Amino acid sequence: MSTQPSKELQTFPNPRPGRNYTISFRCPEFTCVCPMTGQPDFAEFTIEYVPDELCVELKSLKLYLWSFREEGAFHEAITNRILDDLVAAVNPIWMRLSGEFNVRGGIYTNITVEYPDQTSAEEDDCCCGHCE
Amino acid sequence: MSTQPSKELQTFPNPRPGRNYTISFRCPEFTCVCPMTGQPDFAEFTIEYVPDELCVELKSLKLYLWSFREEGAFHEAITNRILDDLVAAVNPIWMRLSGEFNVRGGIYTNITVEYPDQTSAEEDDCCCGHCE
Amino acid sequence: MSTQPSKELQTFPNPRPGRNYTISFRCPEFTCVCPMTGQPDFAEFTIEYVPDELCVELKSLKLYLWSFREEGAFHEAITNRILDDLVAAVNPIWMRLSGEFNVRGGIYTNITVEYPDQTSAEEDDCCCGHCE
Amino acid sequence: MSTQPSKELQTFPNPRPGRNYTISFRCPEFTCVCPMTGQPDFAEFTIEYVPDELCVELKSLKLYLWSFREEGAFHEAITNRILDDLVAAVNPIWMRLSGEFNVRGGIYTNITVEYPDQTSAEEDDCCCGHCE
Amino acid sequence: MSTQPSKELQTFPNPRPGRNYTISFRCPEFTCVCPMTGQPDFAEFTIEYVPDELCVELKSLKLYLWSFREEGAFHEAITNRILDDLVAAVNPIWMRLSGEFNVRGGIYTNITVEYPDQTSAEEDDCCCGHCE
Amino acid sequence: MSTQPSKELQTFPNPRPGRNYTISFRCPEFTCVCPMTGQPDFAEFTIEYVPDELCVELKSLKLYLWSFREEGAFHEAITNRILDDLVAAVNPIWMRLSGEFNVRGGIYTNITVEYPDQTSAEEDDCCCGHCE
Amino acid sequence: MSTQPSKELQTFPNPRPGRNYTISFRCPEFTCVCPMTGQPDFAEFTIEYVPDELCVELKSLKLYLWSFREEGAFHEAITNRILDDLVAAVNPIWMRLSGEFNVRGGIYTNITVEYPDQTSAEEDDCCCGHCE
Amino acid sequence: MSTQPSKELQTFPNPRPGRNYTISFRCPEFTCVCPMTGQPDFAEFTIEYVPDELCVELKSLKLYLWSFREEGAFHEAITNRILDDLVAAVNPIWMRLSGEFNVRGGIYTNITVEYPDQTSAEEDDCCCGHCE
Amino acid sequence: MSTQPSKELQTFPNPRPGRNYTISFRCPEFTCVCPMTGQPDFAEFTIEYVPDELCVELKSLKLYLWSFREEGAFHEAITNRILDDLVAAVNPIWMRLSGEFNVRGGIYTNITVEYPDQTSAEEDDCCCGHCE
Amino acid sequence: MSTQPSKELQTFPNPRPGRNYTISFRCPEFTCVCPMTGQPDFAEFTIEYVPDELCVELKSLKLYLWSFREEGAFHEAITNRILDDLVAAVNPIWMRLSGEFNVRGGIYTNITVEYPDQTSAEEDDCCCGHCE
Repeated sequence: MSTQPSKELQTFPNPRPGRNYTISFRCPEFTCVCPMTGQPDFAEFTIEYVPDELCVELKSLKLYLWSFREEGAFHEAITNRILDDLVAAVNPIWMRLSGEFNVRGGIYTNITVEYPDQTSAEEDDCCCGHCE
Repeated sequence: MSTQPSKELQTFPNPRPGRNYTISFRCPEFTCVCPMTGQPDFAEFTIEYVPDELCVELKSLKLYLWSFREEGAFHEAITNRILDDLVAAVNPIWMRLSGEFNVRGGIYTNITVEYPDQTSAEEDDCCCGHCE
Repeated sequence: MSTQPSKELQTFPNPRPGRNYTISFRCPEFTCVCPMTGQPDFAEFTIEYVPDELCVELKSLKLYLWSFREEGAFHEAITNRILDDLVAAVNPIWMRLSGEFNVRGGIYTNITVEYPDQTSAEEDDCCCGHCE
Repeated sequence: MSTQPSKELQTFPNPRPGRNYTISFRCPEFTCVCPMTGQPDFAEFTIEYVPDELCVELKSLKLYLWSFREEGAFHEAITNRILDDLVAAVNPIWMRLSGEFNVRGGIYTNITVEYPDQTSAEEDDCCCGHCE
Repeated sequence: MSTQPSKELQTFPNPRPGRNYTISFRCPEFTCVCPMTGQPDFAEFTIEYVPDELCVELKSLKLYLWSFREEGAFHEAITNRILDDLVAAVNPIWMRLSGEFNVRGGIYTNITVEYPDQTSAEEDDCCCGHCE
Repeated sequence: MSTQPSKELQTFPNPRPGRNYTISFRCPEFTCVCPMTGQPDFAEFTIEYVPDELCVELKSLKLYLWSFREEGAFHEAITNRILDDLVAAVNPIWMRLSGEFNVRGGIYTNITVEYPDQTSAEEDDCCCGHCE
Repeated sequence: MSTQPSKELQTFPNPRPGRNYTISFRCPEFTCVCPMTGQPDFAEFTIEYVPDELCVELKSLKLYLWSFREEGAFHEAITNRILDDLVAAVNPIWMRLSGEFNVRGGIYTNITVEYPDQTSAEEDDCCCGHCE
Repeated sequence: MSTQPSKELQTFPNPRPGRNYTISFRCPEFTCVCPMTGQPDFAEFTIEYVPDELCVELKSLKLYLWSFREEGAFHEAITNRILDDLVAAVNPIWMRLSGEFNVRGGIYTNITVEYPDQTSAEEDDCCCGHCE
Repeated sequence: MSTQPSKELQTFPNPRPGRNYTISFRCPEFTCVCPMTGQPDFAEFTIEYVPDELCVELKSLKLYLWSFREEGAFHEAITNRILDDLVAAVNPIWMRLSGEFNVRGGIYTNITVEYPDQTSAEEDDCCCGHCE
Repeated sequence: MSTQPSKELQTFPNPRPGRNYTISFRCPEFTCVCPMTGQPDFAEFTIEYVPDELCVELKSLKLYLWSFREEGAFHEAITNRILDDLVAAVNPIWMRLSGEFNVRGGIYTNITVEYPDQTSAEEDDCCCGHCE
């Protein structure tokens, strides 16, 4: 496997398909640049998900997060984008992504997004254990 | 954008309308004055919201909080007022504001307000994920 | 306003009647005496409430707690009594009082009381957001 | 009152019968012996309960816990036994007992028991606020 | 009892069958090897369960965890396997296993699995107190 | 021994005279009143000392601290006075008293006094281990 | 005494002149403005001193710190200035002032100044206990 | 080796005689009884020492501490006695023992003793690295 | 002033030359790349110094740290280099730089360098208060 | 470089010879076996050193610590041995090694060794900054 930054997320088959369980990654080493000023931004992302057929490969996740190092990104947009990329890669039963951004202007920002979206989940039919 | 205190909250379009997700800001740098004695008061405000069409612009939020620096304010009233201003600016699906005021008379005060109000939300019809 | 200990709790009109929101006070400076031995007792009380028409005035709350300084009080009885006094003063939609008493005999005691009582609240009819 | 270890738990009338409220005791000073090796064991017990007619007297609770000092006890058995004794003494509406045992073999053990048992409580009929 | 590593989990009869209560073990001393590189991996496992007829014997649990010391194991697979072994040994009413793995590539991984699986539990019929 | 507040400090013979060692007491339960306003003040005192012939008896220390409950006291004066009383009672080789007073006017005050005073100790001649 | 901001620091006679002891104040409620941008700055100051003839009066210290609310100040300059003002007011045997400024540009700044300055103290002659 | 409580401390030869280094043990599982009331007392002892020819054997240290379980002991006396026993057993170059006793009467007691005593050590001749 | 990364450190005149005092900066937002693999590295640097004629300008410090973002650097080399650059810029009386690098291979690395070097400082002649 | 466990410690030239500075490594991933029972032991080692001509290479340090995985080792002996190996590899000006071993028999053990030994360092001649 390469050690170059890459938007390609690798996967491997879920070793226990059919059981709903939770995998979480805490990733304190994220940096991108501010799209307005070009100055560095720093964040810690936390990923939690219930896998279906596929799991996220750990090393490719590191390379994926690295790939944003030179990119400009607004807090709200990049958090949504990373969730979309992860969902596209492993098609999970449930996933939540939380980005904790470093203080700017004396204010600390956090963004939390989920899949499936809380509005689209039909609670009565869902049995993943995270919707209620 | 100005660097003067201002009650005008700036907004930008939600980059992911249609998805319910949560943005939070922790703002430890708030000060106003006591309306009785004119002495300084200090508080930390935490804002959490689910955006609809609009998001709160971070720098204007800083200038907005600054604008209370010379104003007299009772704890209960100012917390309600800031929530009203934020709701008017971005018309969110859901918002909660919590003010943690510095100790006075050996007592620590916290005020937490929500929009929509817990009494007016009709739980069965609401799907924002925060009402249950 | 006086600076004498007093059982008279002052109130002021809720600045935002009709909105259900939460006010909390943490009061680490409480002392009374043991009714058996007359020795000092110490506790920290935490008050949380949803105001209706009236709010608790902060300074009178300090004087009220001071008024127990020379009184003998059992843990269970005084916690219930303080809740009753606060409820009588502001007639809140909901209130919870928690007393954390200093260690005695190697044992740490906490008492938590609520209004309305959990048995008397009819959950289906209540919309204060704290009953479920 | 004696200062001898005793299995006799003293009680006093609940000062506020009819109101459901919670009393908790944290008891870090518990020791018994291992029934296999006779070596000392140490634990911290936390008791939470909703009283009905009677409350647990604090000093007799200390003497009761002391009474296990020379007795051999398995973790699972003694935690269930202490709950049974406390329930027999005060017949509470609800009680939970949690025992946090010191590390043995590199493993930390906790046991938590409740009354009424979660299987026997009929949720629809119970209004103690702890069953849901 | 032996002091050799062993996959054989010993059990003893639940001292209080019929009461639903929770036993938990925190096990910070776990090590296996990476199946790709053969390098050591470290984790802390936390086990929580509601026993039915049988309880896990503490010393055999230590020997069981020791038995993975020389084995290669992927995070997701080994966490599922340990749950399966524990369930096979004591057939609990409910069990949850959480593995907190040491940082690799700047990323911290946690895996949490439950029995019965959240998808297979039929909530209306279950009264173990952990399914809702 | 009485259980009334008393300025009389009891002592007992040092069980190991001739050895320099340190005894410390942390006393979080101290309250007096403000000499200006009569309102309650709260503090935590920490005593450290190297005994000579006599040691401070623990229960009488409790009664001594209790004796200030109704007395007015400035922070700087009372801390010096308590040190003087303790030194007069046990004539220690060395003693340090530290008073941590509750916040007033948004400011937290600490006072630390020592015996013998740092100016009067002749460092070259002193071997108590605390003067350098 | 006034409740207006004031650069006039009040003092009172040291209740125990001749004994070297330490008084410290922790002051988390300080705000001034940036002399470049006019935007608010926040800091927490900690004062420690050994009094000689005079002590700092607590309420006037609060009013003194308040007096900087509308003033522009560089971190290094204001910390030195506050020390100078305090030294001029009470002429202490020793004083240390530490300012912990809120994060700006992702960097946290602390400034610590002492009186007498470490270069001017002639260590062999000084017996205040703080020079070595 | 026995698993009975015993005042006999076992030793083993220092594996690196001639090098001054520090061994420390933290022992949170200590209990004895109050010599006045017979009620249980609890403490945590911390031992630090520089070995000479002999080291303290860990299991016998556990049995030694266990041997005080039924004995009455004053805080100051027992701490000195345990130091004396340890010094007699291994004749260390330096040793410090610290006993942190559970709160009694609202007061937390700590006792710290050293060998050789700070008064008897002739600092100029000592090179153990702990005397200065 | 530019907002581009730059190795040029800006300075301003020390507002209080002649007084030895300490300025410290904690800089958690540092990233460079590994010179072997090109992968990102992260660190937190803490700078403490006693200024002589010049002080470090805060914004240029931010831009200076930013300038390493694309550079390869070994931990030991870069920490020494940053100290050299800072010393060259402000010629301080004393400076210490500490770099806390993120975990790699399960090992956490810290590097601390000082100016003047501990070997070259002639202690008897130095009065900066940091050499003893 | 190999990824096999190895007692061979790799080094690289100190990038700044002549400057005394400190490098530290915190290594929480250490395991060996008890030489008496063969059961696993766990420890966290912290290394601090002032390099002379050579520095410890980070990856080889990881492989070196791994090499003890199957070896039996007493706490006191292995800590001294690791220090000896590290000193032999890089011949540092100063080095301290601290081993924090997991609890056994309810007792927590720490061992701290230094080079050069505190007895052999002639303090007057040493200028490494760590001997005083």
